[in-house]
Amino acid sequence: MLKILDQIMSPKSIAIIGASTKTDTIGGIILKNIIEYKYTGKLYPINPKADQISGLKAYKSILDVPGDVDLAIIVIPRDAVFTAIDQCNEKDIKGICVISAGFKEIGKEGAELEQKLLEKVRSYGMRMVGPNCFGVINTADDIRLDASFAETLPVKGKTAFVSQSGALGAAILNLLEDLKIGFSQFFSIGNAADIKTETMLEYWKDEPNTEQILLYMEAISNPQEFAKLAKEISKKKPIVAIKSGRSAAGASAASSHTGSLAGADIAADALLKQSGVIRVTSVNEMFEVAQAFENCPVPKGKRVAILTNSGGPGIMATDAVCESGLEIAPIKESTKEYMRSYLSSAASVKNPIDMIASAPLDHYEKTIEALIADENVDAIMVICVPFLGINPMQVAQATMKIKDAHPEKPIISIMMAEGSFYREINKIETNIPFYQYPETGVNALSKLFAQYEWTQRPEGKEPSYSVNKAKAMGIISNALKEGRSQLTTLESIDILEAYGIRTCKYAFAANVEDAVKEANKIDYPVVMKITSTKISHKTEIGGVIVGINSEEQLRNEYKALLDRLKSKGLEDALDGVIIQEMVKGNREMVCGVATDPQYGHLMMFGLGGIFVETFKDVAFRVNPVTDIDVKEMVQSVKAYKLLQGARGEIPANIEQVEETILRLSQLVKDFSFIKELDINPLKISDKTGEGIAVDGRIEVNFEQAKQALGCCQISSGSR
Amino acid sequence: MLKILDQIMSPKSIAIIGASTKTDTIGGIILKNIIEYKYTGKLYPINPKADQISGLKAYKSILDVPGDVDLAIIVIPRDAVFTAIDQCNEKDIKGICVISAGFKEIGKEGAELEQKLLEKVRSYGMRMVGPNCFGVINTADDIRLDASFAETLPVKGKTAFVSQSGALGAAILNLLEDLKIGFSQFFSIGNAADIKTETMLEYWKDEPNTEQILLYMEAISNPQEFAKLAKEISKKKPIVAIKSGRSAAGASAASSHTGSLAGADIAADALLKQSGVIRVTSVNEMFEVAQAFENCPVPKGKRVAILTNSGGPGIMATDAVCESGLEIAPIKESTKEYMRSYLSSAASVKNPIDMIASAPLDHYEKTIEALIADENVDAIMVICVPFLGINPMQVAQATMKIKDAHPEKPIISIMMAEGSFYREINKIETNIPFYQYPETGVNALSKLFAQYEWTQRPEGKEPSYSVNKAKAMGIISNALKEGRSQLTTLESIDILEAYGIRTCKYAFAANVEDAVKEANKIDYPVVMKITSTKISHKTEIGGVIVGINSEEQLRNEYKALLDRLKSKGLEDALDGVIIQEMVKGNREMVCGVATDPQYGHLMMFGLGGIFVETFKDVAFRVNPVTDIDVKEMVQSVKAYKLLQGARGEIPANIEQVEETILRLSQLVKDFSFIKELDINPLKISDKTGEGIAVDGRIEVNFEQAKQALGCCQISSGSR
Repeated sequence: MLKILDQIMSPKSIAIIGASTKTDTIGGIILKNIIEYKYTGKLYPINPKADQISGLKAYKSILDVPGDVDLAIIVIPRDAVFTAIDQCNEKDIKGICVISAGFKEIGKEGAELEQKLLEKVRSYGMRMVGPNCFGVINTADDIRLDASFAETLPVKGKTAFVSQSGALGAAILNLLEDLKIGFSQFFSIGNAADIKTETMLEYWKDEPNTEQILLYMEAISNPQEFAKLAKEISKKKPIVAIKSGRSAAGASAASSHTGSLAGADIAADALLKQSGVIRVTSVNEMFEVAQAFENCPVPKGKRVAILTNSGGPGIMATDAVCESGLEIAPIKESTKEYMRSYLSSAASVKNPIDMIASAPLDHYEKTIEALIADENVDAIMVICVPFLGINPMQVAQATMKIKDAHPEKPIISIMMAEGSFYREINKIETNIPFYQYPETGVNALSKLFAQYEWTQRPEGKEPSYSVNKAKAMGIISNALKEGRSQLTTLESIDILEAYGIRTCKYAFAANVEDAVKEANKIDYPVVMKITSTKISHKTEIGGVIVGINSEEQLRNEYKALLDRLKSKGLEDALDGVIIQEMVKGNREMVCGVATDPQYGHLMMFGLGGIFVETFKDVAFRVNPVTDIDVKEMVQSVKAYKLLQGARGEIPANIEQVEETILRLSQLVKDFSFIKELDINPLKISDKTGEGIAVDGRIEVNFEQAKQALGCCQISSGSR
Repeated sequence: MLKILDQIMSPKSIAIIGASTKTDTIGGIILKNIIEYKYTGKLYPINPKADQISGLKAYKSILDVPGDVDLAIIVIPRDAVFTAIDQCNEKDIKGICVISAGFKEIGKEGAELEQKLLEKVRSYGMRMVGPNCFGVINTADDIRLDASFAETLPVKGKTAFVSQSGALGAAILNLLEDLKIGFSQFFSIGNAADIKTETMLEYWKDEPNTEQILLYMEAISNPQEFAKLAKEISKKKPIVAIKSGRSAAGASAASSHTGSLAGADIAADALLKQSGVIRVTSVNEMFEVAQAFENCPVPKGKRVAILTNSGGPGIMATDAVCESGLEIAPIKESTKEYMRSYLSSAASVKNPIDMIASAPLDHYEKTIEALIADENVDAIMVICVPFLGINPMQVAQATMKIKDAHPEKPIISIMMAEGSFYREINKIETNIPFYQYPETGVNALSKLFAQYEWTQRPEGKEPSYSVNKAKAMGIISNALKEGRSQLTTLESIDILEAYGIRTCKYAFAANVEDAVKEANKIDYPVVMKITSTKISHKTEIGGVIVGINSEEQLRNEYKALLDRLKSKGLEDALDGVIIQEMVKGNREMVCGVATDPQYGHLMMFGLGGIFVETFKDVAFRVNPVTDIDVKEMVQSVKAYKLLQGARGEIPANIEQVEETILRLSQLVKDFSFIKELDINPLKISDKTGEGIAVDGRIEVNFEQAKQALGCCQISSGSR
């Protein structure tokens, strides 16, 4: 199927169905752009009312076109699109780009038409861009296709861009000249009925002119597919993405805008992280970062050397480096000594290296070369304030010459110069990125480093543990039989235990002797709770006794409990007691699983107890997760420091905590109908450091569960 | 003394001591800039080796100048500066600007020379800019002074800027043409030996051409003075500031750069907040924000209407609005109805208002006017992607025309157009700010709103409570007599109590009967702790018993304690016990006072217990604090939700918690030598909601305390 994409992106011939002479219509602008950008193939304007358009012979119908057509661009009113598609089929055209609007984006009626359109296109074995899209661009010299209705012609480069917003694509093409970046290909997916972001990711994986991929997304249509592809591609080609609709209001706007299910930013954010996609939040940030990737190798570490002729910007760069998670490189003594040999005595050779305002051009050259040679330096930031006669273009040229000779380390230039410098530099070929402000450059560097870390990241495994699936299934079946989608705490804990998760030990005891026996098995201290179908408010009658430290105390408390019940005439209400392990520990974590209607199961881990809502110190990942995903997830919460024993407690058994999450992952893979699962708290034992599930709550999707288990041989419930 | 500043900023005559014909020297560039910017006063180049410079008569010495001189600009080698100052005095010149470097910034020797220079200048009744500065600029038509060595001439405007980094000033002047903002005055303070940022704040307070003030600071030389001035001025003229040296490494670079005490970002950040200064972190952000202040009234609320011809940027703007703390305005039904009457049926009239790509110019006009009339809208953001024939300059002109007629609401334009539009717009007079990206505009709007909130903020009071100062003094004196700067927990608690802070009740008891008596007074539950000079590890021998609920239990525990001691042969070691109130409550806060060597006492409040270090959920303010400062401080921590009872606990008595901080503030005002004070935890009682100091720790500066109390009549210790 990707072969047809070649016909769309690199067509040998194009028909524009709806080509126009009027340059204020979309059909007119597209034709004009194709001609002006000097498309190398054959071009057939189709228009029933014209013999000639823009000097080209026009055809009444696509069927009149003499030769083969690789790509048909359709720019006619919506209701005429269907006939056009039929005619394209008659003409054996497989590549279709529907610019026409009036489909899913306008509501239900449009969505139905779009579905019909899709079915038609599929039945003909075609592939379709759009509908409601802004067109496609391929800047390769042997193609030169600008089939968009942008105001400005594209700039050639090594970056492919797919936009879910046509207008945003237009805006970016407007800005491209100033952005100092060029496109290999541009693709507006429009309503993405057929070709989606995921399709283009796969297509660009081996596209030779594309070295990095930019995405603007309002929704991720197929998260699992996206993750699989992105994970693979991002190790070779950086993927930088805007996913808008972060806020609830933004998501609602996105949803009404694209007609697609949006929102769920927690899930989207997790998915992008797991897939190695570099997320940015604005168009300017996207292009600042893209510039760095176009011009820099990824650094082998995070130690940045800052070179400046001006103290203030040097300090601001230092602040930005520290705040971005990068580090100020510790310059080698020998390098410092060398720099002292030529720099002004008032200069500072300690990073940030302040050569002071009077530094001439050759101080830049010598110092950059010295920093390249210094193995304590992973990346170099050259700040220049043009004054006292220093010429910014000379500094830029000198820096680029050194980069040419030493391409191995990223060098970025912060040129605090007027716009005329940038207009000049945008006209020549460059091999380093130029930024006007230190903070922008530092952010770009930090993303380069994130890419390095991603390329170094191990693949990760999805371990498969030996568990008692049958037991878990039995418990769920029993609940379903009783018409419940919500499992009881005990049922939930039993399922967790069946999946090898360390749960708080407990046992039922019908009388005091049993209670003593169970408590001795569990080991003191224990908690005793009454079980009674008649008493609902257990704490009110003192039915929960914590901190029982010995057999003697247990017997006394049991007796006292009976006395209390008797005094209220409730002696018959006692069915027995639960004897439960009492886990001592101040560190309460939470872990669990939530379900996003689009992304599926989300694994969650973080700080539990009374702080969950207030601090929201929780991390999420989309299931399935690997051991590496889980490790990163656990390390990403602030409470990780507590796990390490920041306050003098014994360190938590972090491996066991990670395993807990991986076992939960296996559980919800086995039972995909689990809707919600909460372990809160997962208490870190002060004795062993283990994470122990003290409370558990599982809810299933009743209908899905019934369907899934209905077809299975259900073992009888095991409690 | 401010009169002399008039002579410096608006001189009728200038002498340049060290003027040069060479345009690659500072003396040459300054002269060139003064001439090229068409200075309106008299100009006297001073150079012993020239008769004429740049067509002006040159003088061998300042003493040869025939007329009066308001301002002498000194650009000669450091060691010649002193004689020049003497001569200036002879000539009765009061305004001095020392460009020459080689003073404090180069180390100890330079600092000593700078001190001498300052003394000389002061003894002559002069005021001095610099040394080691970049010069001054005044763009007023009747002055036209550009006494800087920037590469480009200044742009006139309503903004005054003081820069602590000369080179940064140079960079900004380079960028000014693109920044779409102009200066009323520019002032490079250099080493700020005499004239400091604070001086300029005061000077600009009533300067008629200045409507807003920008600051670049690496250190705040006089925090108390700065706060006092900024607080007053910022209500009339917005103050936007970069304070660099935020990171430890940045602070260290700032320190070596400016030779001044820097760092302490926590204190600086607090001070700026308390003073109504709008803090930004980069030069571009500073100018983006300054553009908004130059062109917009402050909004009366935070409800933003977003108007766009392009969905994607509208969604991104919505995300940014929500994330910045602003709100998406709920458009009135009647406004929506009106918009529906002319907008395309595919348009969305729900905020963000998406007029869709085909919207013509008059849709912009009508909709902006409708949003101005809608009282649910406080600010308007107009996003335009120029395509399909819409002309950005026409949209800009139309928007500005409406703004002219309706200046009451802030309107900002997001024009996603190529650089040529910006070059054009920068040439004409504008009344709205233009940004290329939605996020930038939203950030600027959020700062406008912050300014509105600041102007509405009540002044606040520093309440004075009736306290037992003598008792506190006595306790401290006793400790000093014993040679201790660290007070014991009991001493600390007693001092807090003397200042009316709710502390955990406790009492000493020498025997079991006393213990019972005290426990009955305090009320159960209580904690019992042994006091013994011989036993250091009290917990090891079970010397701390918590949760004693009754007299009977107290007697039993006391006996058990004696038995334990006896069994170890320690029965004689018991001096008695402390009976302490047991405060029940899960919410543990921390509050206290730290001392910054430059900013003085910092009040602190936040989440305490085991989370202090991990979550750093603490807020700081520089003392003295008002009741409003404290209220904001308490509300700014995330744990505020816990205080409100987010988890179903009773709400904390927040007024009492605030009063606790205010009383601490009074305590450290009374005893300025207190170095550190910690209440950790300040436990929120589940019974009363009060914050109760369960543990306290006070440390004084021994020498300062001795000096302060030595001169006082010390009452005898009251415990």
